[in-house]
This record gives sequence, structure tokens and C-alpha cells, in this order.
Amino acid sequence: MSQAASAPAARATVGDSEFDRDTAVARRAPGVYDIDLSAGWTIFGAVNGGYLLAVLGRALGDALPHPDPFTISAHYLTASRPGPAVVRTEEIRTGRTLSTGQASLFQYDDEGREVERIRVLASYGDLAALPDDVRTTAEPPVLPPMAQCFGPEDGPAPDDSVSAIAERLMLKLDPATLGWALGAPSGKGEMRAWFGLADGRDADPLSLLLAVDALPPTAFELGLQGWVPTVELTVHVRCRPAPGPLRVSITTRNLAGGFLEEDAEVWDSADRLVAQSRQLARVRLG
Amino acid sequence: MSQAASAPAARATVGDSEFDRDTAVARRAPGVYDIDLSAGWTIFGAVNGGYLLAVLGRALGDALPHPDPFTISAHYLTASRPGPAVVRTEEIRTGRTLSTGQASLFQYDDEGREVERIRVLASYGDLAALPDDVRTTAEPPVLPPMAQCFGPEDGPAPDDSVSAIAERLMLKLDPATLGWALGAPSGKGEMRAWFGLADGRDADPLSLLLAVDALPPTAFELGLQGWVPTVELTVHVRCRPAPGPLRVSITTRNLAGGFLEEDAEVWDSADRLVAQSRQLARVRLG
Repeated sequence: MSQAASAPAARATVGDSEFDRDTAVARRAPGVYDIDLSAGWTIFGAVNGGYLLAVLGRALGDALPHPDPFTISAHYLTASRPGPAVVRTEEIRTGRTLSTGQASLFQYDDEGREVERIRVLASYGDLAALPDDVRTTAEPPVLPPMAQCFGPEDGPAPDDSVSAIAERLMLKLDPATLGWALGAPSGKGEMRAWFGLADGRDADPLSLLLAVDALPPTAFELGLQGWVPTVELTVHVRCRPAPGPLRVSITTRNLAGGFLEEDAEVWDSADRLVAQSRQLARVRLG
Repeated sequence: MSQAASAPAARATVGDSEFDRDTAVARRAPGVYDIDLSAGWTIFGAVNGGYLLAVLGRALGDALPHPDPFTISAHYLTASRPGPAVVRTEEIRTGRTLSTGQASLFQYDDEGREVERIRVLASYGDLAALPDDVRTTAEPPVLPPMAQCFGPEDGPAPDDSVSAIAERLMLKLDPATLGWALGAPSGKGEMRAWFGLADGRDADPLSLLLAVDALPPTAFELGLQGWVPTVELTVHVRCRPAPGPLRVSITTRNLAGGFLEEDAEVWDSADRLVAQSRQLARVRLG
């Protein structure tokens, strides 16, 4: 159901949006949270890794005394699927400005036994309490204006079963990183896009965890096909994002030995570098 | 004792060197390893984070069925000090080509209770089994020849209590990143050096975990003083390093809000990008 595709009734807000509903966890007991993983954030049937990270991040935000992920490292063990899941959290250490925790997401096998999908370590703090001193030397990516970029809706009609997540994102890719969609991959490990949520919800620290893993794989521009599963993903959230669209720029410089890294930068409308991430992913060669 | 400072008797080898002796762990029971953390790998009395990561990496290499760290993520909780420590490991999942584990390093408080210093998640594989396909587009850092770079031994006589680690490293810094040592920091978040071990031992996957955290902080070139403690460090080991000196290049582009990231690249003598890391560290502003 694409309510956002017709004239939107009202823009969704942080706390009241698809993303919030689909990442909400229900605390069953201290450190135990239930969720039904949504089928809405899948690509080719696989539940998106950034969505999963946001679910874990939501649980940890409840379990730890500090509200915002500062650095979160996830190791992906087995593929998640839509349906029931449980997140178990552990508080490791609490300090004055940072607390550290661990969380695991489990699903259930045919006998109802828990199978671990992802385990994360994370340090949380309060982004609103950080001093204003900004000496960032990195510069935002150069992207054409949004009207000159393209999303899935600009191509052939998407098949819902392939790209459910595409309906929930506002994704407008830089045409310079879209060669793969036209059968002419650039050969450069780059992917850039304007990014937001389809229902208009502004970004927040948790949705940044989705943003770093929501673009097509750089592998496509490198001429590789097929799934590029994430082995490990570490995200640094450095700043609460300003309202408005984000710019996401992903780079791969070390495709070798059947693995590649994807370095993502997320910039907000105030030109702040709000999140940085690196993931290690496996590729199918040849 | 600086046996290496005089004419070396024989070059140390992988498995028989200071680094190996000081990172050796004794398995007390399955998943339980004892070590006496060496005072030899400290800077200003603090045990170096990369040395600690190598200790954890050594234990995990014994605990897991695959030999080499592929991606290891560490959250540093409390400062370690030389002396007794225990590493507790857990095998999380074993696959055909990758296995994932967790490890914690503990020391003891005045009552003999265990206090957790560091917790890591890591995925291990077999670097020797990776296909030869190398499509790295990153290029090695430009460094002056080693004879035109400078180490601690080229400056005022080092005070052993300040720089014990300096005696165990062959570290020759690019003069372009040494302004801080002359009271004239460049203002650029960069640090580059030729790197090796003082006793001549070649690099291996475990010593790469040390290499990414063994240079002076980029904060020094940014004009900041004092300690820059690591909150979190993720290392990707992508290739067994060739014999000979390494080149380490560290960059900081996002100093903001009292934190900074350090991105390290380690290149071997065969021009392979053998390791990449990113750490989040806290700085003292003003």
C-alpha cells in the first residue's frame, strides 16, 4: 500500500512513521525485547541490514542510560527473515558520558529454538550534550540537484517482491552512479544518493543506521552481480541530523580476495557529516 | 633491555619475538586464557590499544576454527595496566569460510574481582585461502624514503617511562606529519610512517592489529594535546602481509563535538592494502 505515492495526507514525524512502527520493540522483561520483523524493508526478500541495525539500536537505546548510538559494531551471522524475533541486551559498563552495551537478535527455527542472527557492541551517549566545536575538514559529496537524480520509481515498474524497501525510501541516485542500471557499470566503486523516508519522516540518529546500508551496492558499479552480504558493519553517529534530505556517499577502494569494504558518509541539510560507517562484505567473483 | 638497540644477534621471526612473547596467552581451560600484560607496550604508562587488540586476537585465533582475523571490532571500557589479565572467549558461530567469536579482557581490582577492560566481536577466516583476484583502486601513501623519515631515537633521548613502546617499534615518521614534535603542528589530521618491529620480526595478521594503533595521534598535528583515548576500533585484515617494512597512513577528517575518527591504512612491501581500520576517539578540546 503506497499511501505516500499519492498526495500524502500528512508528513510522518519522528516517533510516528513507518520506520518507527517497523522498528518498535516491545519490552517483555528487562533486557528482552520482542519484534515482528517487517517484510517492508527487504530487498530481493532479504531483510535490510541497516533496518536490522536500527531495530537493535532501538532496543539498546531503551536498555542503556544514554539515548544515542555513538558507535555501533554489528557482526551478521545468519540471514534474517520477516517474522518474529527477539532482541536480548546486556549493559556492559556505564560511565558519565558514555555507556556500552551488547545486543543480539534471534529468530526461531522449526523447533522454536533461538538462532542468533546478529550480535552488536555499541557505545551510547547524548548527542545533544556534545560541545559545538566543529572542525570537520571532510567536504560533502557533490550531487546533482534532486530533480536530476533518479529513484526506482523512475525506472521500470518495480516488482513489490523485489524491492519492498524501495517503497519506504525516498532514494534519488546520482546518475553518475547509475550505469549499472543501464547495463553499463562505471567500473568505479561509488554510489551516491539523496536519501530520506518515503512518508516524509525526518532523519534521527536511529534512521542514520538504516541510511548507511540502504543504497544499492557499490559492487553493481564494479560490474559484479548478485548478493553482497554484509559480514560486519560499524557506524559512528556524530551529530543529530538536521531536518530535510540526507546525502549519502559510499566508496569502495579495496575489492580483493572475494571481499570489499563500503565506506559510507551521511551528510545532512546543514552540511554536517552526521554519520560515517564501514562495512566488510563478501562478493561473488567472476 | 634493548638488545635490539645494539647490533642484533639475529633477526626475530614470527613466533619467536618480543611481540609474540608479550602477546602469548596461556590456555587455562577452554575459552579461558591468562596473560601478564607487558609494561613494554605502553605510552605514557597506558597500555597501547593495538597491543591489547593483538592479545585478544591471539586468544580468538586459538579459540576459533579459522586462523586469521578478518574483521575485529573492539570497545574499550576501562584503561588496562601492565600486570595479570584474563581473556574469556566465546564461539558464536562457525561457517565453512568464516567463524565469529567474542572475547573480553579482564583485570583484577583490589578485591581480586574481574573488571572488564575491552570487549570484542570478530570474524575469522583463512587469509591464505582467499582467491588472488585483486582490484584495489586505493593507492599507497606517498612517504619519503625511510632514511629521510624520523623516529623517537632521532629526537631528544626518550624517557623509558614515557615511551616504552617506542623501544619495541621501528617507527620512522614522515617529516610532513612531525610538525607537532617541533611545536608547529600542521593543522592537518594526518600521520604517516614506515612501521616495523624493533627486533626485526616480519609483520603478520596479528601484528597488523598493533600497527593500526601504534603511531602518534593525528590529534597532535591538529594542535590538540593530551591523551586521545580510543572508544572503539574496528580493523579489517585483508591480506597476509609480505615481509619487510609496512607503511601506515592515518587520516582524521571529522574532528567535532569532542570526538574524532582515525582512519588507518596499512600497506605492505608488495604494495598490497593489507589492513584498514577506523577508530572513534575522544579529545580534550581547547
